[in-house]
Amino acid sequence: MNIEKGLDKIVKTIRVTITDQPGYLGRLTTAIGSEGGNIGDVRLLRSGLTHNVREITLYVDNDRHLERILHAVSLVEGVTVEEVIDRVQKVHEGGKIAVKSRVELATLGDVRKIYTPGVASICRQIQQHPELARRFTAIGNSVAIVTNGTAILGLGDIGPVAGMPVMEGKSVLFDKLVGISGIPILLDTKEPDQIVETICRIAPTFGAIKLEDIAAPDCFEIERRLVERLTIPVMHDDQHGTAVVVLAALLNATRFTNTRLQNATVGIIGLGAAGTGIAKLLMAYGVKQVLGTDLSQGAMEMHRTNGGEATDLAGVMERSLIVVATTGCPGLIKPEMVRNGQVILALSNPDAEIGPQQALAAGASFAADGKSINNALAFPGIFRGALNARARRINNRMLIAASRAIAQYAEEGELVPGILNMAVHAAVADAVAQAATLSGAADPPA
Amino acid sequence: MNIEKGLDKIVKTIRVTITDQPGYLGRLTTAIGSEGGNIGDVRLLRSGLTHNVREITLYVDNDRHLERILHAVSLVEGVTVEEVIDRVQKVHEGGKIAVKSRVELATLGDVRKIYTPGVASICRQIQQHPELARRFTAIGNSVAIVTNGTAILGLGDIGPVAGMPVMEGKSVLFDKLVGISGIPILLDTKEPDQIVETICRIAPTFGAIKLEDIAAPDCFEIERRLVERLTIPVMHDDQHGTAVVVLAALLNATRFTNTRLQNATVGIIGLGAAGTGIAKLLMAYGVKQVLGTDLSQGAMEMHRTNGGEATDLAGVMERSLIVVATTGCPGLIKPEMVRNGQVILALSNPDAEIGPQQALAAGASFAADGKSINNALAFPGIFRGALNARARRINNRMLIAASRAIAQYAEEGELVPGILNMAVHAAVADAVAQAATLSGAADPPA
Repeated sequence: MNIEKGLDKIVKTIRVTITDQPGYLGRLTTAIGSEGGNIGDVRLLRSGLTHNVREITLYVDNDRHLERILHAVSLVEGVTVEEVIDRVQKVHEGGKIAVKSRVELATLGDVRKIYTPGVASICRQIQQHPELARRFTAIGNSVAIVTNGTAILGLGDIGPVAGMPVMEGKSVLFDKLVGISGIPILLDTKEPDQIVETICRIAPTFGAIKLEDIAAPDCFEIERRLVERLTIPVMHDDQHGTAVVVLAALLNATRFTNTRLQNATVGIIGLGAAGTGIAKLLMAYGVKQVLGTDLSQGAMEMHRTNGGEATDLAGVMERSLIVVATTGCPGLIKPEMVRNGQVILALSNPDAEIGPQQALAAGASFAADGKSINNALAFPGIFRGALNARARRINNRMLIAASRAIAQYAEEGELVPGILNMAVHAAVADAVAQAATLSGAADPPA
Repeated sequence: MNIEKGLDKIVKTIRVTITDQPGYLGRLTTAIGSEGGNIGDVRLLRSGLTHNVREITLYVDNDRHLERILHAVSLVEGVTVEEVIDRVQKVHEGGKIAVKSRVELATLGDVRKIYTPGVASICRQIQQHPELARRFTAIGNSVAIVTNGTAILGLGDIGPVAGMPVMEGKSVLFDKLVGISGIPILLDTKEPDQIVETICRIAPTFGAIKLEDIAAPDCFEIERRLVERLTIPVMHDDQHGTAVVVLAALLNATRFTNTRLQNATVGIIGLGAAGTGIAKLLMAYGVKQVLGTDLSQGAMEMHRTNGGEATDLAGVMERSLIVVATTGCPGLIKPEMVRNGQVILALSNPDAEIGPQQALAAGASFAADGKSINNALAFPGIFRGALNARARRINNRMLIAASRAIAQYAEEGELVPGILNMAVHAAVADAVAQAATLSGAADPPA
């Protein structure tokens, strides 16, 4: 089956016992198909004398759809559903990350090297030469992934513990894409003062701080104060990670359409963390006219203060060559609002303001949604580069360098590369590290 | 060579190029021996046409001793020292721990299961049923290892960053011995109020809190307030981990000497975190007379409040059948102070108040130091058991159950087992989990 088709569906796996006679599997799959279920892998688990056990992956629309399929299957003679397995649940079972030892612990000699008494000499060396902490501890390769749970995905304020699966997901991406130890920190407070204090007090543990899924407008103040107080990089991913990938996509979109991004009118719909971050990075890149709109007057005011022009939804759609939407409102952009040749990035997850196919059908020259414009393209390499360069902060030159690196790896005709393209993350890290040194955010290598 | 002999020495490894002719290795090893260097492993790394490259492990007294050996080696014709390698440094290089993914990230399907959009359904389930966080996140298997760096080993207040190698060492022990994710948290504050607030605010991230190397007397108040405020287990290892191992050792010592521990007079020299923890656990176990002495009047007063009797060093040595010293003062106990038949646990690291051999020679019936009475015997199993039982706190019944389990695994004639005996940690975990349920610190399993 078409993978893309499956992506909008829920994946369930059923384990079934089937009579081992010709025709039974056919009756089973026919029953599934009769209810509109798509079948993925069919795996034979056990082959018995009279019965087989198989696992069948199903792509269904929702739980009711699954129930209809299970009912149809229950009517097939010689077939019994033993279990319905949720593959998504399964992958989260027991948590997705663990702190592991990098060293052997097989002999008493090992214990005495890693722990007392051997460890004492390492502690003393760090006490005398604090810079040795980078060499002899995990601090320089660790990034705290900090949330207060107020803006988890598109789910809103569901609290930090319910947000933990997302933090662990980021940690998995850190480990697998760039070898960083990402350490979730769940904060039991929504007060900006307390958040800033708490992070500053635990900051010596980490090489950098990644703020994650903290709601606007507090996220702006929290990030600003942490950047001022700490001498390690601090970045709110929702603001800057998404912005970097949007800039990368627009570098390609304007290259394909032979326009100059700096001279294009860009309109941002939704001025939360992501929208504001995008507006600021585009202005830093040199885009002269950045329109913005939001239901909140405070957000509009901040957009003006940042150098943008505030307007309404109709104004954005009429005047912008490039439209970027980060509103969390599925279907906000109607096809009749799309102008011919417009570039439309409708980024709300899981459901966009307008689907890419619909936008293209309505006349857009390029369209993408949050599935491809994914901040996982940016944050791993940005932090890897910042840590490698021992940067004290993450500045716009580093972010723009990341965007350029990402843009270069897009395949012809695509706005951005896929996130499992490992070369992208290495290139982003190199570009960010170099920009850190050139811009004075890090000291030159000794 | 005798391993025990090597334990008091510094381990260095030299890489040498040696002429490949009979007699050259003999001249080299003779030169090392002539300066009193002990030789461990000799590994052949490369065998060339005219020269070999070997790594030779040396046990030396100190850096000056090494210099003398290197000088003697430099005089041997046909032998060149290429490099002196510090194996202890090497094992700490880059840090001893890392956060690793427990799941695959090979396909776009993997991304969509662990991250958006799949993760959203897991977040929603936890939001609706918070107890599912135990099932679908790493929280229930994670223990924060929190220090402010004020009492790192015997090194004192060297700061949290210089203490990181110790915290990572504990994390290695957690992973390798019981499969717990131990997450170091370095606190940039010494204020008890701030420490308590900070830990409470990040507590949702963890299944339990292990306080580590926080100086007395603040450690008592900090632990007490955290236990009151949090519904997850909180334990200051320096107080209770050491106490559990001491109780285990004394259960065996009194069994071997056919005395009843409850009726024995026990004297504690040094009433810091460890000494006070030991005194309290022994009293909780039922020991009626616990003498204590310390240079601090405040510590003596607290000992009295806890139910002990305060006296001086001479009083402790004269009246106690069992003496436990945790002072950080090497050589404090002179041989002439030891009474015939006394049990002497002199626990200061790296150098004890009196060496076990010296104490036995002076008439002690049993003697041990901090090398064998190691809290790494206790804390891994205690936390594993508490997490397994989903305990809300760690109480004395759980600690005493841990001591009994440890005592049972000592080989005949030994006070405690070795810390790499994996069966000990599993037995401690089981005993602690059972005690948690029986004592009401955890709900009975459903």
